[in-house]
Amino acid sequence: MSTPAGAGDFAARLAARAEEVDAALARLLPRTDANDGGGRLAEAMRYAALGPGKRMRPFLVLETAHLFAVDPARAVRAAAAIECVHAYSLVHDDLPAMDDDDMRRGRATVHRAFDEATAILAGDGLLTLAFEIVCDPRTHEDAHVRAELALKIAQAAGWAGMVGGQMLDLTAERGAADETQVTRLQRMKTGALIAVACEAGGLLGKAGPQAMKALAGYAHDLGLAFQIADDLLDVTGEADKVGKATGKDADAGKTTFVDILGVEGAKARARLLVDQAVEHLAHFDGRAESLRAAARFTVEREH
Amino acid sequence: MSTPAGAGDFAARLAARAEEVDAALARLLPRTDANDGGGRLAEAMRYAALGPGKRMRPFLVLETAHLFAVDPARAVRAAAAIECVHAYSLVHDDLPAMDDDDMRRGRATVHRAFDEATAILAGDGLLTLAFEIVCDPRTHEDAHVRAELALKIAQAAGWAGMVGGQMLDLTAERGAADETQVTRLQRMKTGALIAVACEAGGLLGKAGPQAMKALAGYAHDLGLAFQIADDLLDVTGEADKVGKATGKDADAGKTTFVDILGVEGAKARARLLVDQAVEHLAHFDGRAESLRAAARFTVEREH
Repeated sequence: MSTPAGAGDFAARLAARAEEVDAALARLLPRTDANDGGGRLAEAMRYAALGPGKRMRPFLVLETAHLFAVDPARAVRAAAAIECVHAYSLVHDDLPAMDDDDMRRGRATVHRAFDEATAILAGDGLLTLAFEIVCDPRTHEDAHVRAELALKIAQAAGWAGMVGGQMLDLTAERGAADETQVTRLQRMKTGALIAVACEAGGLLGKAGPQAMKALAGYAHDLGLAFQIADDLLDVTGEADKVGKATGKDADAGKTTFVDILGVEGAKARARLLVDQAVEHLAHFDGRAESLRAAARFTVEREH
Repeated sequence: MSTPAGAGDFAARLAARAEEVDAALARLLPRTDANDGGGRLAEAMRYAALGPGKRMRPFLVLETAHLFAVDPARAVRAAAAIECVHAYSLVHDDLPAMDDDDMRRGRATVHRAFDEATAILAGDGLLTLAFEIVCDPRTHEDAHVRAELALKIAQAAGWAGMVGGQMLDLTAERGAADETQVTRLQRMKTGALIAVACEAGGLLGKAGPQAMKALAGYAHDLGLAFQIADDLLDVTGEADKVGKATGKDADAGKTTFVDILGVEGAKARARLLVDQAVEHLAHFDGRAESLRAAARFTVEREH
């Protein structure tokens, strides 16, 4: 699809991409008849990775790969791997010892639907599965691409990325954070993996330095806009649409972009970031239209 | 060292190798002045990975690499990565929702020394760090070797390996397991990572199929002997030497090799496996002497 797309077209394309990645995940995840203690681990991993969700990160992988005419069968594996990392992080972040959430995407969280030990192990299993997927030589992917994707995923997930971000989030003092700190936290907790998702397409497509820089710039602004939109939804959204409890940030005393910028200021900032994200894509032609629509979608969504 | 070594020589070599890998880990682990919430995550990761321990898996990496005259500076990185995976698994297995252990290697477990959330995140951080280490292109390691090591580690750690083994262990019915099941559990929980440790040296040294097969055979028998020795220590060992509570397996109703074979039967089986492990090394010359000594050590150790 290389023609400009409206919001409806975008929603349809997002849904179609989600179906592609879910089909790949369904194949790549362990089967529930696996002999691992009654298949309970496999069930929990599948519950976590195949539940409702926008599949935004896989979408970014598939659409950035599309820019370079990468075979979708190759891109969908990287997309599935990155979704596994995202799913793992949600499972562990929801645990009683962490954010202690009972609901996620309108369903019971994994430790509520199964139990705490299973949730910890399902998270560990999803994290390692991501590396099994991207490193598998049966994909006939260049060893360089496999190792580089694994490295980028590990860095985004690890102590300087998502794990470190979650730690910072848990230990942040109530109300003490300023904009620099909140931005840094966002970059670690969500921005790093969104960046990998956007760069994965370039990596698979052997993009040149200028294209990689454009993708990184797009990912940076998109990720920040996405977080601001999330913070706005926590304040203004309705729990039944968002699919989890709202007002949690304020209850937890967490400083959000809305606290710092106000509702209108946060909305304006998000719109500005979306414009910037779209500008980064000037490097690309009509093939980037879905990525432009994705940026606009981040601030228009209701969940 | 390519001359036959006695038990004292072996202990000295094991200690020297442990020092090498600890020095590498100290460099590769995040610094405690990292800005991740007061460096608490880094502290917990270092506490988990640098605490007392035999560093048996790193030893196996370094000694199998030695067979192929691999530069120790290359091998020590793979060794450190595999120790990170081992350390992560201990941290998560010790959690209250899992085995609920307060002591490990004579010290408080990570969730007791820090807290549960920090322990979960430190484990996640150590697991991802392993992939950051082996995939890092600054090592000038072949991309093929980097991707293959990452794959093998992911498979050993994942749902069909350590994670699946821990799940099986948690869900196993009290006293219902037979020898096949206990052997399978061992292969998943500990055997898989020991196999990767032994094969890593061959991978780094571009070993041929015959040598790789010898290493896999050695690892298989060594891993099983190691587990039987562990089960024996749980029954016959003294808590102050073992560094953790003993008699736990019986208390937990877990079937061990000692339950199935009896104390004398288990000892005989372990000795047989050690002999077999040593036989696999017939392929190699005096350079394999430390690996032979390591096999003998597994059944002679008191902790």
